[in-house]
Amino acid sequence: MPYYIGDVIGDWKKLIARTPEKFEETGVKVRVSSPVGEIDSRKGEVRLENGETLPYDDLVLATGARATMLDIPGTEREGVFVLKTLRDGIDIKNYINEKACRKAIIIGAGFISMEMTEGLRNLGIETEVIYRGERPVSRWDPEFSKLVLDELVKNSVSFIGNTLPVAIEGGSEYALRLITDNGSHEGDLILMALGVRPNTELARYADIEIGKTGALHVDLSQRTSKERIYAVGDCAEVYHRVSNEWVHIPLGDIANKQGRVAGSNIGGNLKEFQGVVGAQSFKVFGLELAATGLDERAAQRSGFDTASMIIWGTPVARSMNLNKDRLGLKLVADRKTGKFLGAQAIGESGAVGRINTLSACLWAGMDLDDVGYLDLAYSPPFGGAWDPIQIAAQALKKRL
Amino acid sequence: MPYYIGDVIGDWKKLIARTPEKFEETGVKVRVSSPVGEIDSRKGEVRLENGETLPYDDLVLATGARATMLDIPGTEREGVFVLKTLRDGIDIKNYINEKACRKAIIIGAGFISMEMTEGLRNLGIETEVIYRGERPVSRWDPEFSKLVLDELVKNSVSFIGNTLPVAIEGGSEYALRLITDNGSHEGDLILMALGVRPNTELARYADIEIGKTGALHVDLSQRTSKERIYAVGDCAEVYHRVSNEWVHIPLGDIANKQGRVAGSNIGGNLKEFQGVVGAQSFKVFGLELAATGLDERAAQRSGFDTASMIIWGTPVARSMNLNKDRLGLKLVADRKTGKFLGAQAIGESGAVGRINTLSACLWAGMDLDDVGYLDLAYSPPFGGAWDPIQIAAQALKKRL
Repeated sequence: MPYYIGDVIGDWKKLIARTPEKFEETGVKVRVSSPVGEIDSRKGEVRLENGETLPYDDLVLATGARATMLDIPGTEREGVFVLKTLRDGIDIKNYINEKACRKAIIIGAGFISMEMTEGLRNLGIETEVIYRGERPVSRWDPEFSKLVLDELVKNSVSFIGNTLPVAIEGGSEYALRLITDNGSHEGDLILMALGVRPNTELARYADIEIGKTGALHVDLSQRTSKERIYAVGDCAEVYHRVSNEWVHIPLGDIANKQGRVAGSNIGGNLKEFQGVVGAQSFKVFGLELAATGLDERAAQRSGFDTASMIIWGTPVARSMNLNKDRLGLKLVADRKTGKFLGAQAIGESGAVGRINTLSACLWAGMDLDDVGYLDLAYSPPFGGAWDPIQIAAQALKKRL
Repeated sequence: MPYYIGDVIGDWKKLIARTPEKFEETGVKVRVSSPVGEIDSRKGEVRLENGETLPYDDLVLATGARATMLDIPGTEREGVFVLKTLRDGIDIKNYINEKACRKAIIIGAGFISMEMTEGLRNLGIETEVIYRGERPVSRWDPEFSKLVLDELVKNSVSFIGNTLPVAIEGGSEYALRLITDNGSHEGDLILMALGVRPNTELARYADIEIGKTGALHVDLSQRTSKERIYAVGDCAEVYHRVSNEWVHIPLGDIANKQGRVAGSNIGGNLKEFQGVVGAQSFKVFGLELAATGLDERAAQRSGFDTASMIIWGTPVARSMNLNKDRLGLKLVADRKTGKFLGAQAIGESGAVGRINTLSACLWAGMDLDDVGYLDLAYSPPFGGAWDPIQIAAQALKKRL
């Protein structure tokens, strides 16, 4: 009988209590509140912190990642949060309600920050984003991240760039005060949205190989360096089909796939996970953003000689575009081979659809000629006779 | 200097008069109202009906297609229309306004019929669709075409299936009466939406090869069987990458691509058109429909041993799906090889995006394993961690 032992959050019991029969039916025993102290891969055992020992035939590490908390004074104060687990989410909600929270400060400006900014503003909470860089979502082309900044401003969010937090203290007007190298800011709630780090301590003590990214190194079957030990999800690396490198991309859909592949292999149905192309998306207020493949810097690091181009089109045919929506699409390609390497899209609508199509192109290793003449389901309510995808690929091809 | 001579509609002069400088700038001479009587491919000349002779180095046939008019008595009556050219569209609009049209009858139930039905209903015109088959859009899986029928009914359109028109007469309550084998129906306007046939007479007289489909046979460079004569658009065949056959798919985006390829070749920049996968889409009231690749019948005709499956999912993650929208997705695959062959999608939203992604998969010749683990830009406002695309491909794979 396999055991599944992962990060446990306080209310998980209640959650799984909703469908206990589901677990019983499948013969899976779930032990919550049972932290693991050690893995003994030679003996094939796991030792719980309570002293109990559990033998295993196959072991799956699904230890996830931990949200990064800044190492500055005052982070232990009530009202300072990260957002990683369901427990974190519940705690934030409760705090907002109990304290009648009026103003929030978010440190960091990645997509979790953007999503939380929208969520807090929708609750009527004044929101300030503090970021070390100049613009939010700095992974994105400056032309696109500038639009995200405009969207924040349009929704009455203050964005304070080029600013490093120094300490958190009690506030005067609000519950907390964030001291920075650029003045101080008060709020009732401070959220650290600074990304995650793979949770690898257990594996490290068991001498399981850690990759260059800091996450557990696995093969396409999700096997770690130790026999019969698998790793899946945010604690593990994943193969990037475009760069041909092992990367750490902690996203839910990838974790899902890895879990399925590991389970399939353990069950005797051999399966390899064919990797990712780096597709991702998020929404912030009225904007849709999506990206796939390599951005220019990543492509250059991977040894490509890059060319790139932004085009501005419309999500639907111009005749049907009553709201005058615009769709920005940036493509990156290899100058020598014409190979398509990556894309970013932004707009009120239509960005994710384009990026999903381009993700399939990347999956297949297409070049710009293929992308430029791809057969798409043309109809004016959904796009022009030449879609921005085709226009961008043809335009970039000319520039190579 | 190349001449471009195509189908001419009455108001074209006015249209191009908007941008005469565009044509002058590029050195292109456009001769409207100059019907061509004959092509002499040996001499390399075109003879106009007015007796004039124009020599050519390269000739492009872009003669398009003609809308099918039923061969029944009374089609010459005022108020009986097809919809193919801009002139047709203008005539229909004028007729509706001048006659204060109250009721329309549309013969045929393909996607032009559906689009016109929506257009007429939006003008407040009572609309009746008469069709020889049982359900509208009969190319679609019955489970999906049933939903289109429901959508018509919901929007107060009467759909009269299994009915063949016999004649058109003057009406009593409305201007026209359509006699069918199943009773008679009156309306102020009758629109024939019965598809198109390639316009190949000129080519036929010049002994240019016609394909099995009835359209002009071309190669990947858009060359016909006669030297220096090209054909593009609705009069020409196109290569289908999935069936490996030459087909006739008269759609605007394909015509655009073929024109570009022919022009490129004539200009000395050699280019091949890599074909299509059969992607198409349309909107009818609140429904979005899209399809790509081969449907089951077409796949079987092309020699595949097909398996297929419909799954019902949601266009966005369930937690975000406030309107409880549903997305139906049907996949077709080859039983022996697992090769993905085609898809149909229907829903209030999200159908076209999925079909475009699946079109890229078809373009690349993917199998169900690839499609089932494709990397898509997951985010709850745009889809679940497992998208309907992946769920459908994995489910169909199990059934092979």
